[in-house]
Amino acid sequence: MISHSAKIVQQRIGALAKITEEPGRITRTFASPAMRRANELVGAWMRAAGLEVRVDAAFNLLGRWNSTQRGAKTFLLGSHLDTVRDAGKYDGPLGVLTAISAVELLRERGVKLPFNVEVVGFSDEEGVRYQTTYLGSRALAGTLTAADLARIEEKQIVTARRNKNEFFGYAEVHIEQGPVLEKKKIPVGVVTAIAGQSRLRVEFLGVAGHAGTVPMTLRHDALAGAAEFILAVEKCGVLATVGKIEVANGASNVIPGNVSLTLDVRDQNDSRRLAAVKALQIKAQNIAQRRGLRLNWTLVQQTSAVPCDKTLTQIFSQCVAQRGLEVLKLPSGAGHDAVALSAICPVAMLFVRCKGGISHNPAESVKTSDVRVAVEVLADFILRLAKHP
Amino acid sequence: MISHSAKIVQQRIGALAKITEEPGRITRTFASPAMRRANELVGAWMRAAGLEVRVDAAFNLLGRWNSTQRGAKTFLLGSHLDTVRDAGKYDGPLGVLTAISAVELLRERGVKLPFNVEVVGFSDEEGVRYQTTYLGSRALAGTLTAADLARIEEKQIVTARRNKNEFFGYAEVHIEQGPVLEKKKIPVGVVTAIAGQSRLRVEFLGVAGHAGTVPMTLRHDALAGAAEFILAVEKCGVLATVGKIEVANGASNVIPGNVSLTLDVRDQNDSRRLAAVKALQIKAQNIAQRRGLRLNWTLVQQTSAVPCDKTLTQIFSQCVAQRGLEVLKLPSGAGHDAVALSAICPVAMLFVRCKGGISHNPAESVKTSDVRVAVEVLADFILRLAKHP
Repeated sequence: MISHSAKIVQQRIGALAKITEEPGRITRTFASPAMRRANELVGAWMRAAGLEVRVDAAFNLLGRWNSTQRGAKTFLLGSHLDTVRDAGKYDGPLGVLTAISAVELLRERGVKLPFNVEVVGFSDEEGVRYQTTYLGSRALAGTLTAADLARIEEKQIVTARRNKNEFFGYAEVHIEQGPVLEKKKIPVGVVTAIAGQSRLRVEFLGVAGHAGTVPMTLRHDALAGAAEFILAVEKCGVLATVGKIEVANGASNVIPGNVSLTLDVRDQNDSRRLAAVKALQIKAQNIAQRRGLRLNWTLVQQTSAVPCDKTLTQIFSQCVAQRGLEVLKLPSGAGHDAVALSAICPVAMLFVRCKGGISHNPAESVKTSDVRVAVEVLADFILRLAKHP
Repeated sequence: MISHSAKIVQQRIGALAKITEEPGRITRTFASPAMRRANELVGAWMRAAGLEVRVDAAFNLLGRWNSTQRGAKTFLLGSHLDTVRDAGKYDGPLGVLTAISAVELLRERGVKLPFNVEVVGFSDEEGVRYQTTYLGSRALAGTLTAADLARIEEKQIVTARRNKNEFFGYAEVHIEQGPVLEKKKIPVGVVTAIAGQSRLRVEFLGVAGHAGTVPMTLRHDALAGAAEFILAVEKCGVLATVGKIEVANGASNVIPGNVSLTLDVRDQNDSRRLAAVKALQIKAQNIAQRRGLRLNWTLVQQTSAVPCDKTLTQIFSQCVAQRGLEVLKLPSGAGHDAVALSAICPVAMLFVRCKGGISHNPAESVKTSDVRVAVEVLADFILRLAKHP
């Protein structure tokens, strides 16, 4: 039965992957015709599972299972249905389709819940259309800003706001997008927090010169300084990445005079992240001073960590342990709709192992046996939540 | 008198700088109308100095001072009159105009030489037009290749070839294009050799990944490997530069999977240069192996060092010492027409201090007092050469 559910999830993910705005690859962006067709298809599966389906003003697809108890609160399950350009099949849809299957299993078993369940397919997690993430989930949470609305055509999405007193939690299943579960040979992991992030632009300014005529001892090579910094980033103790580097007017026979690079620092502990950024800034200053370079250090963006709710996370852990699996707790380095939902209710996430840790790529792959574990755990999670005091 | 000569050289360099094919900046490329006008102007100054002037089939400007001795050989003095785009005033013209002034001084003093002198303004040292350097001097030396001729329109330049038995030496005055003389507070330096050069393309291939989800210990970051290599290049013991670096598909939130960079290694000693390149290759292999990266190591171009002639260099040194100046011997890291002339006769070069070591830039600057030293030394050089056994 559950094995059958996992196969259905895989088949549905395959069918959904055919809905795209770019032939030959998967691309579904906010409020596009492809997203409307995706909502119709997934909405049909929701109806087949016995859910009341609607699309809200922010193009979020919502499938509701009403409790028989009057005045019951609502628990949200889901993820997003939009994608990056040339996406994989699983990032987003896995969370929506495992939620539908888990609910379907419980309903087939005749389970009655003391709360309503709403399965949601959010309309814009990736932010491809407007370069502003979580439009769908933030519309629902009521946290859109005037700046967001100024950037978008679909001003009406602000009316998708829900009363936060309706909800008592949100749980999201998502592919890990990293290699940890695969490396540890575990199908699912329990997320402790969504990491905070600091994004910086770092510029080293030295003196450009002729590669053949300036002795090594008289150089102020901006790239050599940047190289020293990149190795310091690698050893800074938290997750930190230099993803881009550019030598202005670079040429093979010119000593680099101006190098800029990006720095991305993430951690589930905000003070640890901020301390690492500060230590790297001091390191960069020391490198620049010793080498006779100038340093420009610019904070581009900063977001705080979002801790997952302890109680919901503990329930996920119990469900995993009950299946005889090792309970691996890990932070999420990527952002998710759970970040937006955390503004109005406790959140929790379950990661599913994906091949090679690959995401945002057509090579995304998840084993059917792992999908099965995710559906089982999510169904158990709802049952345990119902029994929870 | 000599002080007057230096001022004239500066004035002429200023006048020549106004001849350009790009209004507002100095650009004179091979066989352009601007080069024809430059040859006319400089030719007039040659005639005023008493030289017999002609332009050869390779657009080189030649001003000849015939010896009274029958069957005398010829000594060449000069440099080039073409420029890079948006050039400075001194790179090239300084050598041609100091030669004209030195010859003029000697003729005014009634000096008779046992050899002919030809002052030459070569037509293509920078190689801007066809990306092939030394077209003028190699045409004269007879070392153009079929591949060179295939690339250019002006096939007739091959007929500019001279009989190598005519010549017994070439001396070139040129701005240093580096900061060593300025740093040491010396107006001129004697060049020991024109460095050989190895140009390579080095590629590190790792595994791209999400900056938020791949733990530091599971990364194969191509840029971190490249950074380690850049610091090894800096410490490799010879003149070595990484001037360009590129992260393929680089993004601030993606771990670099593919990084390519340029490597430029120069030394006046070929075996030392080749040993340094080999040691860097081994270093790169070790870095790649330790980090689980693949390495692509590609030799792009390689030229051998051209040693300056010991006797001619010694004469230059004696002339410098006679002026009470420290004799600083230094290699040239940049290429010069002397490289092409070395195929047919001994060569020597005198470097002149330039402000900040800057060249290939409108900011090129040389003090009149330094120009004076160059004219004096070059005139002395010719006199000493005449007395040399």
